[in-house]
Amino acid sequence: MILTVTLNAALDDTYEVPDVRFGEMNRVAAVHRRPGGKGVNVARVLHGLGHEVTAAGLAGGVTGRQIEEGLASLGVPASFTRTSGEARRTVTVVGAEVTVFNEPGPTVTGEEWAAFLGDYGRLARDAAVVVLAGSLPPGVPPDAYAELARRAPGPVILDADGQALRLGLAGRPGVVKPNAEELTRAAGTRDRAVGIRSLRDAGAGAVVGSLGADGVLAATSEGVLRAALDRPESGNPTGAGDALVAGLAAGLASGLSWPDRLRNAVALAACAVRSPVAGEVDAAALPALLARVAVTREEDHAARGHE
Amino acid sequence: MILTVTLNAALDDTYEVPDVRFGEMNRVAAVHRRPGGKGVNVARVLHGLGHEVTAAGLAGGVTGRQIEEGLASLGVPASFTRTSGEARRTVTVVGAEVTVFNEPGPTVTGEEWAAFLGDYGRLARDAAVVVLAGSLPPGVPPDAYAELARRAPGPVILDADGQALRLGLAGRPGVVKPNAEELTRAAGTRDRAVGIRSLRDAGAGAVVGSLGADGVLAATSEGVLRAALDRPESGNPTGAGDALVAGLAAGLASGLSWPDRLRNAVALAACAVRSPVAGEVDAAALPALLARVAVTREEDHAARGHE
Repeated sequence: MILTVTLNAALDDTYEVPDVRFGEMNRVAAVHRRPGGKGVNVARVLHGLGHEVTAAGLAGGVTGRQIEEGLASLGVPASFTRTSGEARRTVTVVGAEVTVFNEPGPTVTGEEWAAFLGDYGRLARDAAVVVLAGSLPPGVPPDAYAELARRAPGPVILDADGQALRLGLAGRPGVVKPNAEELTRAAGTRDRAVGIRSLRDAGAGAVVGSLGADGVLAATSEGVLRAALDRPESGNPTGAGDALVAGLAAGLASGLSWPDRLRNAVALAACAVRSPVAGEVDAAALPALLARVAVTREEDHAARGHE
Repeated sequence: MILTVTLNAALDDTYEVPDVRFGEMNRVAAVHRRPGGKGVNVARVLHGLGHEVTAAGLAGGVTGRQIEEGLASLGVPASFTRTSGEARRTVTVVGAEVTVFNEPGPTVTGEEWAAFLGDYGRLARDAAVVVLAGSLPPGVPPDAYAELARRAPGPVILDADGQALRLGLAGRPGVVKPNAEELTRAAGTRDRAVGIRSLRDAGAGAVVGSLGADGVLAATSEGVLRAALDRPESGNPTGAGDALVAGLAAGLASGLSWPDRLRNAVALAACAVRSPVAGEVDAAALPALLARVAVTREEDHAARGHE
């Protein structure tokens, strides 16, 4: 079983407002509501591919129940720890432009965090892979991901940003998956190879940098690898990063080599880009896309820091 | 007991986004969540003034439960008829400007409407006054307010717009309360006195036009009356119309004369304008404001159509 952890799970609303007028009253033409948060999105992709998965994390109030009911209606097994605070919502207004409003999320109490650690310990025992993904809600310790990585008996994939990522490296996660901006923020350099090496030095077993249309650059136990499509897919990039993480988790659970793992992950991310619905994955396109991914080994000068 | 009916009850979210950027990702600084919809707002004002009130209407899903829980936490008695569809939400983004997003509301089935009519019949029997307020959700008959007005044993106050108001007049509600724009839309004229007379001719027992800072112009059984503050109150006009309706309902239930009823209603609306929180009423300011309302009788030329 692959366990995904979403400490700041959300109910994601998409509002279709064709002729949106800011500073005025707008009638919403259509509302799309679905459970969200990075770890929840990873769990949905893995479930859609037929993998055994459990979505865990923190969720409270009736919004938390809506998140659980949404996952149940999709057939995704979930086991969230309840919080007294109401789970956050996000509102994405889609008109001529796309505007997103993210609620901060509830403040988590020490007792609720302790209760989650207990639930997490039990769930992680049965997990082949643990995925830690997304932002930390107020009240959760800033080094939460380090704590969760240390407590996981199996391999851990961490997809986080800023301080949550930097402090999480101390837990020595097996894989971290920053995008270009997250890599720059966490490593303090725009040199991607150097940044990836510095995150490995800080504790990550492997670092997979997702570079959008450039594919991925990964520092792994099998060397520095680059994986990319022969040509970029056009479409909706929303959720591509979550699909990439799902592909890395699936490959890790299946014991694939790093080159095959990256090939699968890059193809799966492309499926997400091709899907008309943000965050959905068109798995039927996977075989054709797999054949279009090239994996190349790079000389490790930069990653070795030119020693 | 005063019964308020809200057929399209809502969960109203206010998002504080100080430096809102449209077309980008925005972190919401603070979220204020409360039950809403015109009839629900009227019930909250009446409850705050110590009147016995019951908030009824249609509400479904977990959002409907949030509306009921919100009213319970305010101590406002509620008796909503459940719908299979999820109750609507509204999102008001408050930054440099105010932007509102209104969800359309769930589609109500014929069975759900029939179930509401049954619940409404039982509740209306015990009501001294019935307040019908707000928009009609999809699936509810366009003449729903006429039907509900006919079925009410006691006096009815109708606060609606467009077709819901025009068709509702056939139910001969005791009072209708259009604002200036609603009056123009329903009567098809910008002449307020003529418009008010035409709504009376179409079936309303009395018509109270709310003209913002100009107070109210009312065609009643005691003649055409104007009620206004000595000087306009500055503040937040949101919810002032609902407070005005609450004042009219309270005065009707208490058997006040039309001049006293209008004086109370205009003063209560001014309390809402003075309150820093939209939709809240600062009742402590009521006595001072009552003394500042002038009620004058107008010559009924226009209302008589110059006969």
